[in-house]
Amino acid sequence: MKSELTIFYRIFTTTKEAIEKFMAMLDPVIEFAKDDHERLYYHHIYEEEEQRLSRLDVLIPLISKFEDIKDERAFSPTNNEFNRLLQELNLEKFGLHNFVEHLDLALFQFTDEERSTLLNKLRADAYGDYQQVKAMLLEINQHFDHDYVDPHAHHDEHHDHLAPPSTGQTVKTISSHKKGFTVGSLKYG
Amino acid sequence: MKSELTIFYRIFTTTKEAIEKFMAMLDPVIEFAKDDHERLYYHHIYEEEEQRLSRLDVLIPLISKFEDIKDERAFSPTNNEFNRLLQELNLEKFGLHNFVEHLDLALFQFTDEERSTLLNKLRADAYGDYQQVKAMLLEINQHFDHDYVDPHAHHDEHHDHLAPPSTGQTVKTISSHKKGFTVGSLKYG
Repeated sequence: MKSELTIFYRIFTTTKEAIEKFMAMLDPVIEFAKDDHERLYYHHIYEEEEQRLSRLDVLIPLISKFEDIKDERAFSPTNNEFNRLLQELNLEKFGLHNFVEHLDLALFQFTDEERSTLLNKLRADAYGDYQQVKAMLLEINQHFDHDYVDPHAHHDEHHDHLAPPSTGQTVKTISSHKKGFTVGSLKYG
Repeated sequence: MKSELTIFYRIFTTTKEAIEKFMAMLDPVIEFAKDDHERLYYHHIYEEEEQRLSRLDVLIPLISKFEDIKDERAFSPTNNEFNRLLQELNLEKFGLHNFVEHLDLALFQFTDEERSTLLNKLRADAYGDYQQVKAMLLEINQHFDHDYVDPHAHHDEHHDHLAPPSTGQTVKTISSHKKGFTVGSLKYG
């Protein structure tokens, strides 16, 4: 679990910086939005990322705390704080997934070179980190028979539409579902 | 706390039904989207609400469980399950807030009478429930000196843009921030 914590720490500090870059990009777009719809749209995405940022401000120190714990017994379902850590990590797996989609949506509209280059970089990082978090949590949740039932577990079974991290790929992957598309048949990628 | 639990139960079972109605409305919109951008946009909102639905499937029975508890000592920060309940309620306050905005975004685009009538009804309920949950949690968080720090608390101080529940109002309220608008100066309504 120690090596996983080091990776989680790296991933969530990276995504925290990425959120800040993304919010800084959205700020002027909200301020100079062409109409109310556009303003609400970007402001809404901004707020969801801001909420995630606030949760990461609690999660990252919790990860650090467990990194420093020497007593292996702390890593047990009988330790409520450890359950709390697993619960938060499971929630932030979906935070990362939703971030990838926020970046994909932004890529449709911010097509100038400067912004699309940054967005593609953030998207590639977030996509890779989401995949890694997903794989690590799958293993951890199997290993620790903790009392937390992941309320999103069925998503991983029924959804798979996030494409590999390269421009335009997401679009193609989603399009490929067009034939006989039903929402329930998608799976998280 | 017992009377609050009854209200929380009512609110979160109501919003669960509302999510299902909203998802049923989005389903054909996703299936027959005019392009990939539109498809991703609605699918993304659909997924976020689906994630919320999955969390409510865990939260609602937890509320019920506490409604049945006779021993007042269970309602204490020394009870980890009670802390968990408060933590989840604090998270779902933001779930309700984001739902109001998803409905507002949909109201910009589904302007036919049938859908806009339903959306306005769902929006009015969700807005009222969000306000009530916010007020109740403010009091509960002050009363119970539990070990959970609401990672979103600063939002309530710095954001205020959700308008009262009537069509078009949101738009006006957000517009009123246009002059000297900065994202940081908005406050949750």
